[in-house]
This record gives sequence, structure tokens and C-alpha cells, in this order.
Amino acid sequence: MSESPLVLVQRPPTFDFMDELLSRNFPVLTTHHTSSAPLLNSLYRHASSIRAVVNMAMLKLDADLLSHLPSLQLLVCTSVGTEHIDLAECKRRGIAVTNAGEAFSEDVADCAVGLLISVLRKIPAADRYVRSEKWVKFGEFQLGIKLSGKRVGILGLGSIGITYPYYPDVLSLAANNEVIILCCALNDQMRHIVNREVMESLGKNGVIINVGRGGLIDEKEMVKCLVDGVIGGAGLDVFEKEPGGPEELFGLDNVVLSPHCAIATPGSLNNIAQLTLANLKAFFSNQPLISPVRLD
Amino acid sequence: MSESPLVLVQRPPTFDFMDELLSRNFPVLTTHHTSSAPLLNSLYRHASSIRAVVNMAMLKLDADLLSHLPSLQLLVCTSVGTEHIDLAECKRRGIAVTNAGEAFSEDVADCAVGLLISVLRKIPAADRYVRSEKWVKFGEFQLGIKLSGKRVGILGLGSIGITYPYYPDVLSLAANNEVIILCCALNDQMRHIVNREVMESLGKNGVIINVGRGGLIDEKEMVKCLVDGVIGGAGLDVFEKEPGGPEELFGLDNVVLSPHCAIATPGSLNNIAQLTLANLKAFFSNQPLISPVRLD
Repeated sequence: MSESPLVLVQRPPTFDFMDELLSRNFPVLTTHHTSSAPLLNSLYRHASSIRAVVNMAMLKLDADLLSHLPSLQLLVCTSVGTEHIDLAECKRRGIAVTNAGEAFSEDVADCAVGLLISVLRKIPAADRYVRSEKWVKFGEFQLGIKLSGKRVGILGLGSIGITYPYYPDVLSLAANNEVIILCCALNDQMRHIVNREVMESLGKNGVIINVGRGGLIDEKEMVKCLVDGVIGGAGLDVFEKEPGGPEELFGLDNVVLSPHCAIATPGSLNNIAQLTLANLKAFFSNQPLISPVRLD
Repeated sequence: MSESPLVLVQRPPTFDFMDELLSRNFPVLTTHHTSSAPLLNSLYRHASSIRAVVNMAMLKLDADLLSHLPSLQLLVCTSVGTEHIDLAECKRRGIAVTNAGEAFSEDVADCAVGLLISVLRKIPAADRYVRSEKWVKFGEFQLGIKLSGKRVGILGLGSIGITYPYYPDVLSLAANNEVIILCCALNDQMRHIVNREVMESLGKNGVIINVGRGGLIDEKEMVKCLVDGVIGGAGLDVFEKEPGGPEELFGLDNVVLSPHCAIATPGSLNNIAQLTLANLKAFFSNQPLISPVRLD
């Protein structure tokens, strides 16, 4: 690398796990601001020199904010989803974009399986039952639901060509399975793809696991369906409004709620730190990006 | 069947799920008593006619109680473990004994996997974090531990000949794995097989999953090891004293507690009801038992 391109890292205050790795390799500006005006304000005159942004906190990068970063060439997203990025504007400007690629895949898959077993076998409710000494007071805990033999549909299996049955739409996926696992990207076409009709099709023993994005589900309808028994249960790592989650669910034993932490292990953090550095190094050495996002 | 043998079903008041199936096929006496004197008292003069006992509540059947059942020929245990039965006395008397065989295997295995992921990824703690609105108040939840790549040792793999590495003792099993899953029977040799030394060998990142019996672990030492960080976590479906569980663990996030419900699904209950009937029918038709316990 003949020069040292300036890298802006936008991250929450506690997400310092890749600071050292990046600053050993590039001049780094760090900001915790999550909205445009204070962020730009904090950069002073440096905004015009920034050549790469590492976006760790789902910072909304729209055409306006991008217009204040005239030297930007590379946008490294540490998430898999890029719904917060104006990809069309990046394409127009010739800004390359990368995402988390496979960095989180194992942990998210583990979490999805863990949530599924936790919902069916009511593990957090069972745990509450023991800790609150209800086991001693009231005896036997309620029955769980058998996992083995369940038909599981996956919305967002990725591009791997495998021999699982394929359903062309989410309604038939729901009708033909007892569990649907959401691990796909959120975009305008996918918003509320799991709506009332899909949940009715999944049915009263059906279970939804969401490790994708909250917006994939019509959450208001899902709450009604869970409260009314239209579906049987849900394991949710993501919500329409975060942090938070719908409080109508906080008293239910057939839901398991998780604070968007499907990726939160040291292994995943190390993966994403290494991947971020590798993408930056590759780009500024004119090598192919490791995890490019297709702009089309 | 030329005659109708009298069957005593000993069960908790709520465990009525096989009543109808059994009473359609045999004359059945039901008792909820769990100790010898009131139990015998409740049977009046029928004790001497009882030819089979279905033991659903871990009723302790020692030589003394057996001596009051002179016509007993078959003892059907609805558990896998038979630590509550005086097998030597059964052998001496020529009483055949059956257990739950494979009826619960799938559900217990599912539960063990669910407990493991729940401990590593702290699913019940995460669920508490969302429900108590700590996510909103305090932000990011703590990191979990990665599942993929963990070495898992199983104490009580059964007699299936497979190619997993075999360790001749529990200490080397613990030393060479990061997780040990207990799914073996409890007997005098196995009591407290997981002692302080084994836990030290498993180490500070080690996790114990127990879906066998509480008595397999020296629970007092385990509590100390969990509180002091000698081991990393535990997922426990069974305890030395049930119902209950050690209250020193009730505030810890690195343990998941479950009220002995690894088998509690409708699927398992149906399996054990069918198996119980099949063993009774087989025995009284002079056919081989479906799930005999070897008396030696």
C-alpha cells in the first residue's frame, strides 16, 4: 500500500473489539454518532478525506450522508443485511460495499436451533419454573412439544444447491412445514413477508424462529396470533423495534425472546474483525474483495 | 389370554395418560401412594392377587414391599433407570422386570442438545433480559459461547458400536472434552461419578449437561464449582433432591435448570403407554418381553 487511506469506524461505545486490529493497519477515526448531522459535525474537515467506512452500528447511509463523503471508495458493513445502505447510490458513485459474508453463519445457525428447541421444549419457562420454586410448590411442569419428526422450512437458505424440497412462495412453505426459520435479508419485497395469512397457514402447532430481521414479520399480527393461539410459538432474536420487543409477549411461555444476540460470541467477533481488515487490505491493494455485496 | 391378571398401576395423581389404554386390556387397580404401608393398606386383600405392577412414580420396591405381593410376576417400570428396584430380589423371586427401553431416547437427546445450546448461548438469561426490559435500559447483552467446534463427551452412549473416540474413565473423558453429557444409569458404582476432581479436569470453560440422574454428580461440589468458576456452566434436568434443585444456582446465568422434564412430550408419553401395554400383553401371552431389564 503506497498510501494510508483514512478509515472511519462508526460503532457503539462498547464495540471496541476490532479497534486495535484496525488501527495497527490504517489511520482510523472513530465515531459513536448514529445520525447524520452530529456525525458529520464530529468529523470536522476530515469528512472529505475519508476513503473507507466501517459501519458497525447499522448507521443509515443514505444519498445525503454519502454526499458529505466525497472520497469514499469502500463501505464495509459488519452486518449480513444491508437494508440500511442506499446501494443504488453506492453503485452510481462507484463505492464498493462488503458485508459480513459467512462470518456469523455458524453462530446464527446454532442460535436458531437453540431457539427452536427452547420454544418446543419450553426451556426458559422450565428454568423459570425451577428458579421460582414452582416445581416444589405445584409439581410437574407442563408438557413440551416433540422436536424429532418436525418438518422445518427455511426462508433464506442461501444459494447452496441442495436437495431439500423447494417451495416457490412463503405461503406454501408455511403450509407444508410445522416450523419456519427466517434467516433471510430484509428489503422492500421481504418486509412483512410473514403476515397474518402465512401464520394462519402455518397453523396452531406451528412455530416461527426469526434470526433474520424483525421487519420480516408483521409483528403486530404475530403478537395477536401468539396470544390467540393461531400459531403455537415463536423464538425471536430480532424485533421491529430494538432494543425492546413487544411486551404483550413478556408473560407467555410459548415464546422465547433473545436480545439480537444470535451472532454474539467471541468467535463471531473475531471472524468479523479479521474479515473487516481483510476487506480493507484487499481493496487498498487492488485485490478482489472477500465478501462483496452485489450492486445491481 | 385365558385369564385376566390383576395389574397394579402406581402413579402420581396427574399421570392418567395410560389409564384408559391399560384398563381396556386388563383389570387395573390404581394407587397414588408412594410409601409401603399406606400403599399396602389401600390394596386391602387384593395385594395377594396382583400379578403385575406398573411403576410410574419411581416407587421404591424393596424386598419387604415385594414380600407383600406374593403373586407378582412382572414389574413394568416406566423409567429407563431402575435404581429404585431391588433387582436381586426380583431375580431371586423370578419376577420379570422391564424398563422404558428406547421410548424416551429421542426426547431426552433433544433436551440434552437444547440444554447445551441454552447454556452456551445463555438463552434463558437472554430471555429474562428482554422480558425484564434490561435490554432497553442497559443495551447489549453479554456474549455467549460458541457451540460449533466444541468437543462433547457422552457418559452413557449406550451399547451402539460406533467410531467415536472411547475413554475408559470419566476423568479422561472430562480432560479431553469441553462438554460432558450425562445420560447413563445411576447405581452404586455411578453415584457421584462426576466429583470435584472430574470437574477440575473439565475446567473453567467446561460445561456439564445432566439428563441422567441427579445422583451422578456430587451436587454440593458442583454448586461450589459453578459459583467459583471452576467449571463454566451446567444444564441440569435432574437433581439429587427432586422437586427442588440447589437454590445457590437460582441466580446464576451460566446454568439452565429444568424440572426433570426431558421426557415430557406427548410423543414420549404415547411411546411409554404403548410399550407398557405391549410388555404386559407379551408377558401374559408367554411372548418375549419388549424391553426386559437384565437381572444378573
